[in-house]
Amino acid sequence: MTFDELDARAATLDAAHAATDLRERFLLPPGTVYLDGNSLGALPRSVPAAVRDAVEQQWGHDLVASWNTHGWWDAPVRVGDAIGRLVGAAPGQVVVGDSTSVRLHQSLHAAAALRPGRSVVLTEPGSFPTDQYVIAGVADQVGWRVEHATPAELAARLTPDVAVVVLSHVDYRTGELLDLPGITAAAHDAGALVLWDLCHSAGAVPVGLDEHHVDLAVGCGYKYLNGGPGAPAYGYVAARHQDAFVNVVPGWHGHAQPFAMADDYVGAPGISRARIGTPPMLSLLALEAALQAFDGVEIGDVRARSLSLTRFLRDAIADVVPGSAFASPEADERRGSQVALRHPDAYGIVQALAARGVVGDFRTPDVVRLGVAAPYLTHTDLVTAVRALHEVLERGEHRDPAWTTRNAVT
Amino acid sequence: MTFDELDARAATLDAAHAATDLRERFLLPPGTVYLDGNSLGALPRSVPAAVRDAVEQQWGHDLVASWNTHGWWDAPVRVGDAIGRLVGAAPGQVVVGDSTSVRLHQSLHAAAALRPGRSVVLTEPGSFPTDQYVIAGVADQVGWRVEHATPAELAARLTPDVAVVVLSHVDYRTGELLDLPGITAAAHDAGALVLWDLCHSAGAVPVGLDEHHVDLAVGCGYKYLNGGPGAPAYGYVAARHQDAFVNVVPGWHGHAQPFAMADDYVGAPGISRARIGTPPMLSLLALEAALQAFDGVEIGDVRARSLSLTRFLRDAIADVVPGSAFASPEADERRGSQVALRHPDAYGIVQALAARGVVGDFRTPDVVRLGVAAPYLTHTDLVTAVRALHEVLERGEHRDPAWTTRNAVT
Repeated sequence: MTFDELDARAATLDAAHAATDLRERFLLPPGTVYLDGNSLGALPRSVPAAVRDAVEQQWGHDLVASWNTHGWWDAPVRVGDAIGRLVGAAPGQVVVGDSTSVRLHQSLHAAAALRPGRSVVLTEPGSFPTDQYVIAGVADQVGWRVEHATPAELAARLTPDVAVVVLSHVDYRTGELLDLPGITAAAHDAGALVLWDLCHSAGAVPVGLDEHHVDLAVGCGYKYLNGGPGAPAYGYVAARHQDAFVNVVPGWHGHAQPFAMADDYVGAPGISRARIGTPPMLSLLALEAALQAFDGVEIGDVRARSLSLTRFLRDAIADVVPGSAFASPEADERRGSQVALRHPDAYGIVQALAARGVVGDFRTPDVVRLGVAAPYLTHTDLVTAVRALHEVLERGEHRDPAWTTRNAVT
Repeated sequence: MTFDELDARAATLDAAHAATDLRERFLLPPGTVYLDGNSLGALPRSVPAAVRDAVEQQWGHDLVASWNTHGWWDAPVRVGDAIGRLVGAAPGQVVVGDSTSVRLHQSLHAAAALRPGRSVVLTEPGSFPTDQYVIAGVADQVGWRVEHATPAELAARLTPDVAVVVLSHVDYRTGELLDLPGITAAAHDAGALVLWDLCHSAGAVPVGLDEHHVDLAVGCGYKYLNGGPGAPAYGYVAARHQDAFVNVVPGWHGHAQPFAMADDYVGAPGISRARIGTPPMLSLLALEAALQAFDGVEIGDVRARSLSLTRFLRDAIADVVPGSAFASPEADERRGSQVALRHPDAYGIVQALAARGVVGDFRTPDVVRLGVAAPYLTHTDLVTAVRALHEVLERGEHRDPAWTTRNAVT
């Protein structure tokens, strides 16, 4: 297909998907095709004024009274409910605050308390580093053995000693989307809990936490949820587990009567039991405002747009760069919201693309990761990206010595 | 003393302390005397533009590249060094991020690893709830017994089984300032570590962490450091303990080579080893900007101003409200930066004062807590507050039925 033909095809698809083009809800720099929304989501238009109000009016003028008058105290649960809508959780089961690492640490300890006497945490090899490190740390504390299984091996490994299965719904490198309903059901059949990391699926892929009877989940606020750099993470605790939820970091915000300043810890009822300490309100209020980008939007529609975009991107790359090796799955039902290429010069490709205004990212050792945040990208944007990729490779820009020094980029 | 005489005395003292009046560095609402800076510090003038830049330019325009180009990645240690200057810690020993609860949880686990074989955590009765809850939680995990001792009892309780002494440098209710050098030395003589909670002293009182050989410390960013609601907390790990520091929540930001995405956790050298997950950058950058309010300022000078203010406030209240019962110590060297009154109608007094624009806060069961953030308060402000207190009590405004329902206020 020529680029002219690609342009025409993109225009047709963009017209067909015009109803889900939410680009106007975001502020993006001109001349950039941003394919790294799965590292840091773009800035929603609703955020700057909300943050300004939080700083100048709520903090600066109304001061400490804002904990009540501006709803700061309730924000972790209120924003949790807003995220809950996007991941299929009814209100009262998601709480926001802390980092994904802390939420995972907390959720794993809670899982251990919910499944006493079981000795294994089952996870996948090669998952995101924090997940691996935190799993190993908690396993060491509670006396679990860490076992690894690929998705294909999981079913056979669900022995009666497995306390909890911990998996990423979408792999951060390959973009592979796991079968959450099937794996959750299989784990339950073996008496194990499931703990899903939703970092790379929330806001992009339907999750259906309640529908599929998930036990626990965690995720960050700054990828497809667009909550801003380091936006607070969230934790999901299914309502049926809340009474027995043991909070390993029993900060005063999770107390049943926080202002009684009692000597002994008594966990709050409901999801508030998973609260820890004082949340970073400016970041939390930025996340809350950011979620307005999803107002009136169903995740199923975001997913339909995303699938069209990633399929188009994949096909166009395959067409333009013969012999492309994809890390991301071809089948729609196994692909999250990214297209990942394997290439020995992946680092140089990412840098050369960025120099042309196409921002993707590199994941060691050889992955060019192109995140497709459907709300603010069009098929036409993707032709721009593919054209840049074609020219980079044709002109050898990815072998520019300037890219031989690898800089840290998250 | 008449109010006219108090006014004159305040004017004299304000003139004498004019060099440390930093009110112009803050944005405060007109008509308010803000005596709750030890709950939520006021808004520094440097913050709004910095946050706007962080949102619109760094996040919105420069996007993910800001992790490098705007120094986001290094911010936890860079801001830690800025706080370190205010608490007497040389660079490379303070890291910022997470809540005080999480930092405390982490520091206590690290203490357990540094003092294996010791079975007691020694703390004070009635300390801030999170401290009590988190101490009890970690004690349960590592097999410690929790023992309580008042400051006067501490020396006799420093038996060889004490692993760590955990104390608040300044008590959140009474404002009592403990003898950090003496207690630290006594703990060390017994082979124990000390872990100081600096929430109510950092930014108001000289701490001298390095000078007094403190082992570990934690504190929040939102009281006298003015970092904004829920500003990230910080942890101090003395350089001599860093190599043996065990991070109980080994998130990827604390890894020696975070971008290698290695399967196994290897802690970074230095204070970075105490990093956990991705920090809430907007809140963290607000805190960094807020610390500019201390540019060119020595904490010793802040303390001198604070002592003059709190002594003046105490004396004026004693004069105007005969029979006042103070919870805060009279002696300068034992008083933090607040004046706390005990009164059976404390809740009503706080509410009635707030209705007059004098914002203090109530601490259960009977404390009127008047926090004195020296940088933005004058002796004249305090006369306004005392005049309001006098009128509230004289007119019985504190017994208004409107105040009988206690609302949650942090």
